[in-house]
Amino acid sequence: MIIIGEKLNGAIPAVAKAIAARDGEFIRQRALAQAQAAQDEDYFEEPVPLYIDVCASTDPAVELETLKWMIEEVEAAIPEELEHVAIAVDSPSASICAQAFQFCSRPGIVNSVSMEKDADGVVKTDIVFPAIADTDWGYVALLCESGIPKSVEDRMDVFDKIMAKAKQYGIAPNRLYIDPLVEAAATNQAAFTLFSECCKRIKDQYPDIHITSGLSNISFGFPGFRKPLNMAFMSLAMNAGMDSAIVDPTNKDMLGLIYAVELLKEKDEDCMNYIAAHRQGLL
Amino acid sequence: MIIIGEKLNGAIPAVAKAIAARDGEFIRQRALAQAQAAQDEDYFEEPVPLYIDVCASTDPAVELETLKWMIEEVEAAIPEELEHVAIAVDSPSASICAQAFQFCSRPGIVNSVSMEKDADGVVKTDIVFPAIADTDWGYVALLCESGIPKSVEDRMDVFDKIMAKAKQYGIAPNRLYIDPLVEAAATNQAAFTLFSECCKRIKDQYPDIHITSGLSNISFGFPGFRKPLNMAFMSLAMNAGMDSAIVDPTNKDMLGLIYAVELLKEKDEDCMNYIAAHRQGLL
Repeated sequence: MIIIGEKLNGAIPAVAKAIAARDGEFIRQRALAQAQAAQDEDYFEEPVPLYIDVCASTDPAVELETLKWMIEEVEAAIPEELEHVAIAVDSPSASICAQAFQFCSRPGIVNSVSMEKDADGVVKTDIVFPAIADTDWGYVALLCESGIPKSVEDRMDVFDKIMAKAKQYGIAPNRLYIDPLVEAAATNQAAFTLFSECCKRIKDQYPDIHITSGLSNISFGFPGFRKPLNMAFMSLAMNAGMDSAIVDPTNKDMLGLIYAVELLKEKDEDCMNYIAAHRQGLL
Repeated sequence: MIIIGEKLNGAIPAVAKAIAARDGEFIRQRALAQAQAAQDEDYFEEPVPLYIDVCASTDPAVELETLKWMIEEVEAAIPEELEHVAIAVDSPSASICAQAFQFCSRPGIVNSVSMEKDADGVVKTDIVFPAIADTDWGYVALLCESGIPKSVEDRMDVFDKIMAKAKQYGIAPNRLYIDPLVEAAATNQAAFTLFSECCKRIKDQYPDIHITSGLSNISFGFPGFRKPLNMAFMSLAMNAGMDSAIVDPTNKDMLGLIYAVELLKEKDEDCMNYIAAHRQGLL
């Protein structure tokens, strides 16, 4: 499971405040807490990467410089030995993504592209895909073109278009983190059904592709009792093929569930990762 | 989801102590706490049944009288208005089960029968099935004959035999709670795979049958970090067709997960049960 840590997003009031005040200490602390949830090679034989999402959520006019500052703070906070911890550069603007990734000292993930058009009218994939095609960067790709497609078929149509673009720019499937999009269950009861069907079809076609999700949208509209839905979604979506998620890596209940699902699905030989996660204090 | 509350089992040291001391207050308190986790008609339009498992785990010589005492205490503790709360009479002895159910004032579940032989050499189903065939009682039936079958096929062979016995005694599938058996993941990595494959095959054949599990065995051997595995097992097993479980109904995390999985699987129209469970304070 590849985790993308969600705790440095300007949409979170405390983070917005820290950004406005250029409170580097706050940013570094949040970065460090998330980095420490990465698999440690003292416990894991082959630690998997962990990405720290960095999203400014500011006025577009100052977004690029804000991201530059945030990325510098985050990189300063990541302990040197954690070479498998990197940054997910997060902006709704494709052109910002295509510039901001250059501030990072090691390859991460761009979050996100889609078939939507950017501010200048160019399709986002056509901006971001070529910009980093010759690097080791990954891409989160949302299955949308204009709004969230309502049916599995419509989402898979967008998927096909994204894969055609990826092929055009020479990007291998294993660099893609497809986000099939999660609607709120409160407004669409079939939200998980839709998501899981997309997962299955995508993995059937491209076994090496990654599937990710900012899954907490599933529980929108249930203030105060969102956690059970997020947990249930995580386990069922992993069962359907999701192998990455945008979550809080310091949430031990969620992390425990992730390791446990991998064990039950026979993806954890001799339960070594489950035991290692416990020993490292991640559960 | 039909919950069978597991907290009154003589295998639990505190319960064994209370049984030895005939501490009725302790038994009644545990019974009440579990009964209060049942769906309340103030919140749920159609409350589903909840069963309180009653297991003595004493010397067989005193087991029947112990069960009689426990059942009396439990029934005294269940509030009158909770008509959908009943008892699961739990003994490894089929002949004890076939006698002890008579102490109950309303129909419950016998836990359990199997194709194993009882102390007198008679197959357990042949003792319990006919004893309560003409009642509204249900039966937990374990898929074992002599030890735990290693393969899905072997378990399904036992299942076929149990269904033949049920037919012989005129017991409808919807009175059966099949337990496909859960091995410890620490010793059998395929424990969940085996379980879920059995679930799917059973539900394909008999859509109305119940599938249950004393699922905590999945995490045996991981002292101090069993909970994530139990939670993961619950959600994935429900996804595979399990619609009952022998768990602690006062565990709000587990109950929350159960309600959330049902919602995601589109078994909770308009999220009414999820919201009701929250309002009743079950999550």
